[in-house]
Amino acid sequence: MKSYRVAIVGALGAVGQQMVKILERSSLAVSSLKPLDIAQNEGKQVSFRNKMWTVETSGKGKFLDIDIALFSAGADASAILAPIAVSEGAVVIDNSSQWRMTEGIPLVIPEVNPEALRAHKGLIANPNCSTIQMLVALKPLHDAFKIKRVVVSTYQAVSGSGAAAIRELREQTQMVLDGKEAVAKVYPHQIAFNALPQIDVFLENGYTKEEMKMVHETHKMLDPNILVSPTAVRIPVFRGHSESINLEFEKPFEIEQVFEIYQKAPGIQIVDDLEKLAYPMAIDAEDRYEVFVGRLRRDPSIANGLNLWVVSDNLLKGAALNTVQIAEKMVEMNLITR
Amino acid sequence: MKSYRVAIVGALGAVGQQMVKILERSSLAVSSLKPLDIAQNEGKQVSFRNKMWTVETSGKGKFLDIDIALFSAGADASAILAPIAVSEGAVVIDNSSQWRMTEGIPLVIPEVNPEALRAHKGLIANPNCSTIQMLVALKPLHDAFKIKRVVVSTYQAVSGSGAAAIRELREQTQMVLDGKEAVAKVYPHQIAFNALPQIDVFLENGYTKEEMKMVHETHKMLDPNILVSPTAVRIPVFRGHSESINLEFEKPFEIEQVFEIYQKAPGIQIVDDLEKLAYPMAIDAEDRYEVFVGRLRRDPSIANGLNLWVVSDNLLKGAALNTVQIAEKMVEMNLITR
Repeated sequence: MKSYRVAIVGALGAVGQQMVKILERSSLAVSSLKPLDIAQNEGKQVSFRNKMWTVETSGKGKFLDIDIALFSAGADASAILAPIAVSEGAVVIDNSSQWRMTEGIPLVIPEVNPEALRAHKGLIANPNCSTIQMLVALKPLHDAFKIKRVVVSTYQAVSGSGAAAIRELREQTQMVLDGKEAVAKVYPHQIAFNALPQIDVFLENGYTKEEMKMVHETHKMLDPNILVSPTAVRIPVFRGHSESINLEFEKPFEIEQVFEIYQKAPGIQIVDDLEKLAYPMAIDAEDRYEVFVGRLRRDPSIANGLNLWVVSDNLLKGAALNTVQIAEKMVEMNLITR
Repeated sequence: MKSYRVAIVGALGAVGQQMVKILERSSLAVSSLKPLDIAQNEGKQVSFRNKMWTVETSGKGKFLDIDIALFSAGADASAILAPIAVSEGAVVIDNSSQWRMTEGIPLVIPEVNPEALRAHKGLIANPNCSTIQMLVALKPLHDAFKIKRVVVSTYQAVSGSGAAAIRELREQTQMVLDGKEAVAKVYPHQIAFNALPQIDVFLENGYTKEEMKMVHETHKMLDPNILVSPTAVRIPVFRGHSESINLEFEKPFEIEQVFEIYQKAPGIQIVDDLEKLAYPMAIDAEDRYEVFVGRLRRDPSIANGLNLWVVSDNLLKGAALNTVQIAEKMVEMNLITR
């Protein structure tokens, strides 16, 4: 069996650490791991499959002996480093937003559009967290009933903004409980015990960048004809994004069919038992690989309408896991050939 | 000027206390206040307009000298006590869900359907919190552009479930911060750092009672032809409900018209300055009387679509304030005549 030399860029970040953990549990044959990070972390050690691997500073020349480079170093670093890594012969799978909408660069969720990987030129983009879990849930229903329109409101965790945001929620929460004034640094306003209807910056059209990612990435990966109306909201949850999704199908459907389809769908776990008050919840999604769907119910306000509630771990399926799964899928499809 | 003898039933509860506070600040001429509550609170004192008023146990005979009785004692107590109060000659304005959908009983938001008060037979129902703030925001737009369909996802505060829920959020949050396991008593699952897609009980059709309140109360108060597709979600916020609302109008509109309409609309405050990152937030709504609207933007996925974000204090406009405003409106309309 062929084995692969893997680099992780941003190995000590929140998502990078998850990549190491997921890679460790995966069936991917890894002959060596090269953790790369900023200069100040050089020399630190990363444990992987019963061995310690030394962190090096990422830069030119570091990818000459690498087959697969998993990037989670932010858009700015990726803009510079990803082309270098590709030119040095590595296949780059990038978790940042830098390359997602670039024409000719595949944007992939293995459950949704694996065939897009075939056209890769060394660089593959990993989609935005809130889009990934939505499309894993939408894809099998789109195949069956053709989705015309999506109205989605998100309930997103702070871990999507990185380690500093997790600390901020923790610290602000304690301040408020202690009767002190909460200080906001990462977010423009207090996130503790609040809901912020802003994720990422505002664009000309009044939508945020996060909201428009959900529109554009859905068009690129699933179907350019699906209409998407998004509202992205940050809430005081550490980990696990939730989404309230309203769908309008072209074709008629029965709610039982939705259950049947989801029972067989890859990456999906149904949590929907109203007698037991069971539905997907952020706190249950932590450290889980699945996209959880529930509150499945017909929307009688339109002819072919469905409401659902979709939850997943934004650091796993929303980021690190999907990146590793892309690598696994490329190996399976024999697309990594150095 | 005529003055009124006012009773408050459930005067020591979370909403009852707010009623006393709001009544104190209101222009209503109150000649006497009778705080009523359960037997174990008898003899306690309530301060109102520089005088102390002694709590009595509510029951038969207590309403013979009362003009206006504001009820916030829950549905079960209201089922028994409200008819007694009416038979003893008081006008009852009830904050519970007990009478809202009963035919012949007005369900009123003064900004939305004050004329419904004219047909009252002594008992008026105060709507559900999540419906009130939604309809205050919808009414002026419905008048201008005729709303066909509403898709709404809520972000609701725990104070809607009363004082025990506020304690539960506080205690669970501290447990989680201290690395302990959170214990759930009021809610079926942990609310701290989580999102619960369930408010009130589940009904046959897969929707919760809270969700169907938003449907039925919209039909009763605003227009039975408006289609409403609701998802009601509890989030870890102490006070202030937020709502992500997607509207489809019958008539074309310009976004500037929406701003103009809201600038003149009663009870509405626009918070929408994207350059200053200003939008409505739960923490800013606390203790405020207004319904705050923002994130006003066209939804290009349909012909006449609008997305907006609506926030209000669920204990004030969502409960105590609207109840007092109904009383004020009835006085203004000369409908309290004993």
